[in-house]
Amino acid sequence: MQTKSENRCFGGVQGVYTHASNACSCDMTFGLFLPPEADTGPVPLLWYLSGLTCTHENAMTKAAAQGWAAEAGIALVFPDTSPRGEGVANDEAYDLGQGAGFYVDATQSPWAPHFRMYDYIANELPVLLGAHFPLDMDRQAITGHSMGGHGALTLAMTLPGRFRSVSAFAPIAHPTESDWGRKQLDAYLGSDHDAWTRHDSTLLMHEHGFDGPILIDQGASDQFLHLLKPEALAQAMAERRQDGAFRMQKGYDHSYFFVSTFMEDHVAFHAEALFA
Amino acid sequence: MQTKSENRCFGGVQGVYTHASNACSCDMTFGLFLPPEADTGPVPLLWYLSGLTCTHENAMTKAAAQGWAAEAGIALVFPDTSPRGEGVANDEAYDLGQGAGFYVDATQSPWAPHFRMYDYIANELPVLLGAHFPLDMDRQAITGHSMGGHGALTLAMTLPGRFRSVSAFAPIAHPTESDWGRKQLDAYLGSDHDAWTRHDSTLLMHEHGFDGPILIDQGASDQFLHLLKPEALAQAMAERRQDGAFRMQKGYDHSYFFVSTFMEDHVAFHAEALFA
Repeated sequence: MQTKSENRCFGGVQGVYTHASNACSCDMTFGLFLPPEADTGPVPLLWYLSGLTCTHENAMTKAAAQGWAAEAGIALVFPDTSPRGEGVANDEAYDLGQGAGFYVDATQSPWAPHFRMYDYIANELPVLLGAHFPLDMDRQAITGHSMGGHGALTLAMTLPGRFRSVSAFAPIAHPTESDWGRKQLDAYLGSDHDAWTRHDSTLLMHEHGFDGPILIDQGASDQFLHLLKPEALAQAMAERRQDGAFRMQKGYDHSYFFVSTFMEDHVAFHAEALFA
Repeated sequence: MQTKSENRCFGGVQGVYTHASNACSCDMTFGLFLPPEADTGPVPLLWYLSGLTCTHENAMTKAAAQGWAAEAGIALVFPDTSPRGEGVANDEAYDLGQGAGFYVDATQSPWAPHFRMYDYIANELPVLLGAHFPLDMDRQAITGHSMGGHGALTLAMTLPGRFRSVSAFAPIAHPTESDWGRKQLDAYLGSDHDAWTRHDSTLLMHEHGFDGPILIDQGASDQFLHLLKPEALAQAMAERRQDGAFRMQKGYDHSYFFVSTFMEDHVAFHAEALFA
């Protein structure tokens, strides 16, 4: 593992690291914020999964999460959103290929050799993080924005016991019924729709829900509402009597101005679960 | 004036606007954050001047200032750092020309026709802001980072009565004695060093100081310490018995991770002066 940069930030350290990934068969880069408390012992970990077109860097510089994490004594990890590099397949569209991994393990050509973001986030990166940093891997939570909100919710519901709490900012909530989803699931997983269901948080919520609290924030003026389909997830959460809150935020759009506004609430929400 | 974007942010609005500038003889773009209080009446204004290579956008997305400004009920303006466009002179170096206006009014060729950032910030933009937005222009304060910290300090000390308080993050503190300064002052203002003195905050501090409180934060691990020369300004502040604080922050570098860490303190510092 290679250290790309380390910056003092809110009394802790915002680092960026690169490593050879077995899951993705390429070098992968991630950001990790360690709060001051990490100097003296392991701290809980909150995952932040990013959206379409993002790298590890967007949320790290624009989500204003480090201050709240430092206050709570929680580490933050910012993974990349896909494999990258010259030998890695890509597409001209912004919503397929590099920058658009959708947190699935691709089975179809040309994506299968590298696009294994589910495996990477669920299996490889946690082992690496636990081995190299002062993190208490028994206390993990997960959040994300847009495609990353989809990732957070689907990972949390398909890895029971892994995350104590899950939240999302404007998640892609029902990809099997959206143009943000069908195209990508077809490309990565093929036409067998049974393989799609475990990557749709509305369907997963109907099926078994999440064994812990959920917090969803959605901007009411989000320009992508028709692609995100929050109403499907809200209905599924209510039907299941899922512990949690679905909040529709008047006037907010899909940007990081929205994410940063509610970051304090999300970190506090996860802190409550992580330190319970 | 043209609205480029408006995003809901911490209950207020983060806007971006473009206008034809008389001072700079080109179109200029700025960001303006209005807190929720601006819906019901004029609010005080805090200027944020950015550093080398920045546009209006960097601090707007990376400084994490809006949350604190919303809490305090203060507007934030994020001007660009230079004139821009096809007809505007430029230089291959990152530290001269577009993105590097140094907040002076150039008298030398080829810079004189457009590079009038002092005039723009001191005269044109305040009039425009006061005319178009619910701002209380009798209550202004100013801050900035690096070259923008230099701009904030020199504007505050050469416009007595304009700003109630001034602060800076890692300012270029003594440009007449630094490679971040001599080159640019020579290019923009020529070899008459008398014209340089009103653009050097250490010299201005020696000469007359600032009639109000000053807050300076400087990272002790800043990679540009030898160019910023904070010790010269600290000495001048102490000699003058200047009201204020010069804080050396252990472990911090020159990045926005440093700026965002101390933004809460700076907004609170200005709020105290603006609402006194």
